[in-house]
Amino acid sequence: MNVDGQSYRPIWLNRENETIVDIIDQRRLPHEFVVESMTTLDDIIRAIKEMYVRGAPLIGVTAAYGVYLILVNTTQTGNLDDLKNECNRLKAARPTAVNLAWAVDTMLNEILSEKASEKHLQLAKKLAKKIEEVEVERCYHIGLHGAELIKSISQKKNNEPVNILTHCNAGWLACIEYGTATAPIYVAHDQGINVHVWVDETRPLNQGSRLTAWELGKHGVNHTVIPDNTGGHLMQHGMVDLVIVGTDRTTYTGDVANKIGTYLKALAAKDNNVPFYVALPSSTFDWTVKDGVKDIPIEKRDPDEIRYIQGKYDGNICSVLIPPADSPCANYAFDVTPSRLVTGLITERGICEASEKSILTMFSDCRS
Amino acid sequence: MNVDGQSYRPIWLNRENETIVDIIDQRRLPHEFVVESMTTLDDIIRAIKEMYVRGAPLIGVTAAYGVYLILVNTTQTGNLDDLKNECNRLKAARPTAVNLAWAVDTMLNEILSEKASEKHLQLAKKLAKKIEEVEVERCYHIGLHGAELIKSISQKKNNEPVNILTHCNAGWLACIEYGTATAPIYVAHDQGINVHVWVDETRPLNQGSRLTAWELGKHGVNHTVIPDNTGGHLMQHGMVDLVIVGTDRTTYTGDVANKIGTYLKALAAKDNNVPFYVALPSSTFDWTVKDGVKDIPIEKRDPDEIRYIQGKYDGNICSVLIPPADSPCANYAFDVTPSRLVTGLITERGICEASEKSILTMFSDCRS
Repeated sequence: MNVDGQSYRPIWLNRENETIVDIIDQRRLPHEFVVESMTTLDDIIRAIKEMYVRGAPLIGVTAAYGVYLILVNTTQTGNLDDLKNECNRLKAARPTAVNLAWAVDTMLNEILSEKASEKHLQLAKKLAKKIEEVEVERCYHIGLHGAELIKSISQKKNNEPVNILTHCNAGWLACIEYGTATAPIYVAHDQGINVHVWVDETRPLNQGSRLTAWELGKHGVNHTVIPDNTGGHLMQHGMVDLVIVGTDRTTYTGDVANKIGTYLKALAAKDNNVPFYVALPSSTFDWTVKDGVKDIPIEKRDPDEIRYIQGKYDGNICSVLIPPADSPCANYAFDVTPSRLVTGLITERGICEASEKSILTMFSDCRS
Repeated sequence: MNVDGQSYRPIWLNRENETIVDIIDQRRLPHEFVVESMTTLDDIIRAIKEMYVRGAPLIGVTAAYGVYLILVNTTQTGNLDDLKNECNRLKAARPTAVNLAWAVDTMLNEILSEKASEKHLQLAKKLAKKIEEVEVERCYHIGLHGAELIKSISQKKNNEPVNILTHCNAGWLACIEYGTATAPIYVAHDQGINVHVWVDETRPLNQGSRLTAWELGKHGVNHTVIPDNTGGHLMQHGMVDLVIVGTDRTTYTGDVANKIGTYLKALAAKDNNVPFYVALPSSTFDWTVKDGVKDIPIEKRDPDEIRYIQGKYDGNICSVLIPPADSPCANYAFDVTPSRLVTGLITERGICEASEKSILTMFSDCRS
């Protein structure tokens, strides 16, 4: 996608030296646009853990390049146990992100299936690029399917703006291109449909006001930033036509783990008959968990992410302390929206209901 | 209430010199505890206008002491027209604050009913104190009634901590003692009941993390600050026993206008069978509006309250910019929770259902 007229993805192989992986440091957006170069697995783990990169698909792609960097830094005589150990270390960087484990396992299995270890490095590079391109394709198709929903609302509203609420950043910064939740928006916008996006700021890390607003603005999409508290009021007053969010993990029964606060928006959508859609590539499905509310582990993160808010002051990026320094804070990163509150899932194959039956019909080949 | 073991109210007559009114400058909480001395009406007007003091009951009491300070600074020969003019100037400090006009008018009418002007000063002091004590009494009784709810949950939980979620600041800083939403918590705590409070930080102005957390901490009440997004997740997992919020206006049918985001918590409470109570003095009832969602006007405030967040950095209080500077923001200050989501109203007279019938039964003498 475009940043000041130049095409970017959130991760790429350095053009001069393909043993270096470049990423956009998303912690510093929207006020500073900084590219960081990763040369080791530790760089990649830090980037995932400290959220230089975030978003399920991008974490997966970054992890794939992480496996590649393990091999970049391994001598030809490096043994496979070391590779497996390093992969396990990488998988532990963020526990809730299913794409992380999936990408690492996919890389590892394909690499191990090649007996000639001198071919592992080139194979890893090729595989990581393939995982990246597969995500781009998926997001584009999510966009095509979701844009049909927006188009049909637009027609009913006689081309008045379609008001879409989204939570967190499931945009191209979280993926590679288009995004997931934003893909239908970008595709609809590019088709000339009149859209306006309510951007939840998404506390504690403000990925909405920092990243989604930045992305949309750079692409020329009308949007308004709102506190997370606002969506219910807007829905009560007919100011939201559609909610689209992303997901970090969706069970095969249709329960949706996503950024904390998603569940509250789903409740408000239900209470006001606003369609609530979740956009996801099928790689995000968890084929093992049946009851998402009960069984998806919810990551608790550093309370300082709540205590300190990062922003721009006097030309610099700094973090200000909000509550009393000695007040405890709790930082649950995700919540789970039960399938009964989800109108539908927008996937790369099309739109299905958030039910076991509908999901297994569309993805009958995916469940192992 | 207690601040580091010492008893405080947000406003008081200076102990050495009763012609001085002292207040806590709430703009600087929680990072700086600063007491400001008011000696003139202009001091009081500045304190109300610039929000050194906030919260409807406290604004009323501050205004009452403002009238007293007019008389402190008036010679015995001061004429009554001057007094009336000064009162009008005071009432204009925050024109929408209904308690302000009410307190000033009450003071003025009672003073003018005393013909002997040499008695006006003492009368004003006595009246201001009385207005102050009436607020304290109301909040204390809200506390007593609400504490019974907490006590009964505590007994069912065998004295395990009762987890109470609250939104915004309806604490003693907004009132004089106890607060409204916090009154049951303080009374229960003082009775030795084991309570723990989930404090919604309450974007955009963070009254929860800045003020409620400070109040509770200083009084020794266990609490944890959470982003506004978190409550739904906590309720899904049985970590909230009770929600208590305040209100800026409640219709006689039981619809509750309160800080934006309250409605979302009410939806989550309903979905998880968590009792959702609203604490209010009966002066907060609106006896004219029937449909709160439709007919209570919702104030839109300055978008910069969303763009900039105030906190402490490098020893100073400053405001940082969060979203891209050119992204539009929308700042709806309140939302309305329909009565069907409200378990009950905790008033100074007792607890009633959030229904026209129940409210009019308990307050049959109040509706004009």
